[in-house]
Amino acid sequence: MKLHGYFRSAASYRVRIALNLKGLAAQHLPHHLRKGEQRDPAYLRLNPQGFVPTLEIASGEALMQSLAIIEWLDETHPEPPLLPGDPMRRARIRAFAQVLACDTHPLQNLKVLGRLREFGLPEENVTGWAAKVNRDGLAVCETLIGNEPGPFCFGAAPTLADICLVPQLGNAGRFGVDVAAFPRLLQAEAAARAMGAFADAAPEHQSDAE
Amino acid sequence: MKLHGYFRSAASYRVRIALNLKGLAAQHLPHHLRKGEQRDPAYLRLNPQGFVPTLEIASGEALMQSLAIIEWLDETHPEPPLLPGDPMRRARIRAFAQVLACDTHPLQNLKVLGRLREFGLPEENVTGWAAKVNRDGLAVCETLIGNEPGPFCFGAAPTLADICLVPQLGNAGRFGVDVAAFPRLLQAEAAARAMGAFADAAPEHQSDAE
Repeated sequence: MKLHGYFRSAASYRVRIALNLKGLAAQHLPHHLRKGEQRDPAYLRLNPQGFVPTLEIASGEALMQSLAIIEWLDETHPEPPLLPGDPMRRARIRAFAQVLACDTHPLQNLKVLGRLREFGLPEENVTGWAAKVNRDGLAVCETLIGNEPGPFCFGAAPTLADICLVPQLGNAGRFGVDVAAFPRLLQAEAAARAMGAFADAAPEHQSDAE
Repeated sequence: MKLHGYFRSAASYRVRIALNLKGLAAQHLPHHLRKGEQRDPAYLRLNPQGFVPTLEIASGEALMQSLAIIEWLDETHPEPPLLPGDPMRRARIRAFAQVLACDTHPLQNLKVLGRLREFGLPEENVTGWAAKVNRDGLAVCETLIGNEPGPFCFGAAPTLADICLVPQLGNAGRFGVDVAAFPRLLQAEAAARAMGAFADAAPEHQSDAE
């Protein structure tokens, strides 16, 4: 498999974690987002959205959208599971993941922040926007797992929720959010970071890290 | 079941369609988003994000995030399926849905547009932002199903993709996007709107419609 990504992209980071948890090797093909390499015509044929990640599989097919890729990995390589069997637990974990992947991350990516700058907004407003989006999303997530025993978001093993949480906490830190307000999330993050699958997927350990 | 929603919320509309396709009845409980009713403390106990929809089920549990709710409905009430059995097809349909549910809709909801106005941006920029977000997302979706025979997004029956598409086309129209640029999407929309499950879920047919 080939994973098209970018070291600092939270969505690419999620897929790197999932591949590592499944014990699957992939060739990593970096696309430098700040240089616009994701808009190269050859890449757009694989991923018409011009976003990372894209997972190219042995058949030559290309998968896009990190949550869709991760669910595909979980369905085709079931062990260890990234979602439990119980539909209600699955729904809770997916909802947690979607608070971050739908309502948080897309509002603070490079493209959106670039558009805010094009409106002539001062940098303080742009960074403030990104920080608020992260703070709001993480605060919801903290509440969602308040009664979950841990140490991971939903129990004794990592799930799709942890896969989305760890990269988002990284973004929040970059935008100056005080993550100490989220002790339950930090507990889950610590449990995750102690695993090689999460540690090896971190942005600073990628070949394209700057 | 009880569905907490708002007639014009695209995410609520998605869940209304899914319930109708499954032949499931639900009591509809409207929360007027422009009046801030989604921030009522009693509602926040059900949905700490303060967003609609929320689906309360017979056990008393509350489900949030429209895609998580719809996957739960599909897992607990399998007929008719909203996702096919083949993992690759599931991944393609989920990716299409996520282009809209992650990268389009959350960027143009009331809350986000309200924040742009708080920055003092002129109304023309705010509406332009919403129109561009819709146009970009729909253009990607048009490409994604360019080789799919139809009439629905992915074949002869509606899936999660159509459930996300129809409400988003409604939003795009409200923001003045020329949807004639997307003939394949309009074909899918026409097939969907011909079904009672889609027609009955439309905003203008809800009890809280204005």
